[in-house]
Amino acid sequence: MPMQRIVVLAGGIGGARFLRGLKSAVPDADITVVGNTGDDIHLFGLKVCPDLDTVMYTLGGGIHEEQGWGRAAETFAVKEELAAYGVGPEWFGLGDRDFATHIVRTQMTAAGYPLSAVTEALCARWQPGVRLLPMTDDRVETHVLIDDPEAEGGRRAVHFQEYWVRLRASVDAHAVVPVGAEAAKPAPGVLEAIAGADVILFPPSNPVVSIGTILAVPGIREAIADADVPVVGLSPIVGDAPVRGMADKVLAAVGVESTAAAVATHYGSGLLDGWLIDTVDADSVAAVEEAGIRCRAVPLMMSDEEATATMARQALELAEEVRP
Amino acid sequence: MPMQRIVVLAGGIGGARFLRGLKSAVPDADITVVGNTGDDIHLFGLKVCPDLDTVMYTLGGGIHEEQGWGRAAETFAVKEELAAYGVGPEWFGLGDRDFATHIVRTQMTAAGYPLSAVTEALCARWQPGVRLLPMTDDRVETHVLIDDPEAEGGRRAVHFQEYWVRLRASVDAHAVVPVGAEAAKPAPGVLEAIAGADVILFPPSNPVVSIGTILAVPGIREAIADADVPVVGLSPIVGDAPVRGMADKVLAAVGVESTAAAVATHYGSGLLDGWLIDTVDADSVAAVEEAGIRCRAVPLMMSDEEATATMARQALELAEEVRP
Repeated sequence: MPMQRIVVLAGGIGGARFLRGLKSAVPDADITVVGNTGDDIHLFGLKVCPDLDTVMYTLGGGIHEEQGWGRAAETFAVKEELAAYGVGPEWFGLGDRDFATHIVRTQMTAAGYPLSAVTEALCARWQPGVRLLPMTDDRVETHVLIDDPEAEGGRRAVHFQEYWVRLRASVDAHAVVPVGAEAAKPAPGVLEAIAGADVILFPPSNPVVSIGTILAVPGIREAIADADVPVVGLSPIVGDAPVRGMADKVLAAVGVESTAAAVATHYGSGLLDGWLIDTVDADSVAAVEEAGIRCRAVPLMMSDEEATATMARQALELAEEVRP
Repeated sequence: MPMQRIVVLAGGIGGARFLRGLKSAVPDADITVVGNTGDDIHLFGLKVCPDLDTVMYTLGGGIHEEQGWGRAAETFAVKEELAAYGVGPEWFGLGDRDFATHIVRTQMTAAGYPLSAVTEALCARWQPGVRLLPMTDDRVETHVLIDDPEAEGGRRAVHFQEYWVRLRASVDAHAVVPVGAEAAKPAPGVLEAIAGADVILFPPSNPVVSIGTILAVPGIREAIADADVPVVGLSPIVGDAPVRGMADKVLAAVGVESTAAAVATHYGSGLLDGWLIDTVDADSVAAVEEAGIRCRAVPLMMSDEEATATMARQALELAEEVRP
């Protein structure tokens, strides 16, 4: 059997953990990850790419395991000092080791390297065992529209990180806008990887601010829809609640219910061929299949690498079932 | 007696330690420090100002006492990580706490603030008890010409920090060039401070790469020479050797002997009114006075704050003696 070429669209923690399971399930596969960069943010003058880094650190063995993001054995001297200078924001937890990544990235970016080249250079150290591509080299920034009685019109847009990390998605999101996406081009290699894939997977990442942002880059959604290979996703919603909190707020912003079935139909049968939902949602299988998407109910909790590898295997099995 | 206005030209460690003694000797004086920025360097995309920071940390209580530069209780996670990415230089020892200063400075600089405003902002935290001004807001970079058999013409210019820190001044310096100085303007407040000073002091800083660079900014030397107030210096050379190593190499580059008397005549009576040399060099007093500079021999080792305060007091006493 020739080496299977798998393309995975990934956000942060959920995507990264799924990828670890996938690598364990099919160690010989040729995996290309198209990473979300809509949550990128400039902090302290440095370019921070939380989702790309979470994938890179997780697959490269540098992740803070319990937390799911940031570096293991992290220290916070720089952050402490910045606070002593009165320089914020303080709500974004950058550790010393993590700072080094952003310093290298910012220096390379300032020297003219596109983000894709910078990401490749950083991965030369981490050896994630996948090809990690940013969705685009262009600047895309996900903004969230929230209520603000003091703002003109009663609402204002905040950076996704401010919504997610500072506000912890505690207020309603009225809209989620990937600012700049409409003018962005897929990064070098993204469309080629999709066109050459044997299987395309959507991990249990956030369907709006992670996968949705990637799909908002003109050309990517179309390339996936046009690819004559199975596209299979795993529900990030289990038992009508997001596996890792807070996704319901941004789903509501785009008018999608927080259910496994609603997310599948949100992607739609034009994009998705197969959809895995958790066994607790088994009674939704019929609804998803009615929407033209093959559906299976299997355990979807990524409690450890073996459970995650099993999920990945089942996604690949479902892909074979729906292969045209 | 009205508050004495003192202007001090300062390099790094020697200048900073002298200033601590000066503040202790005349706690009520109004002290303006004109700091050398010729040793500033961009590292990892960040703007580093070693001399300004050494003054700021020393007077603000954040200095690594034994080392004389860098922060106390320093850690090196960022540097370690940068090395893991293969990003150098590794010969410049930036600690995590120190990094925060450079991150703040770089961010403010990128936002358009001149170095003088950035320095003021950093000092708002450190409260050094002096007004710390960079010599200029313009970019000046001290380069040192060294032998290099592989370079065209057999010589090449290296950044002062590379000469001083990486090479430890172990090779001959053929020239010391403050690149950019001829086009630089004194930072806001520098000429005003000199014009309004009651006394101007040259601490035992390096006469070539510290004080010499400050004097190379057009207007500063002239303002000091024209000021109708005493200008008194303290020899950085004691017993024909620099107090803090290596200065002899850069003195040789400008054709000046490493002696307390030679440094005095290098500055010259057009600039200097008084000169303190160490008691071990007492037999040079006559030579210096012959050059038209009032000279006293006193202990010049800054072994502790009290010894340094005594040196500062003696400099101020000599200033009164030579006051026009």
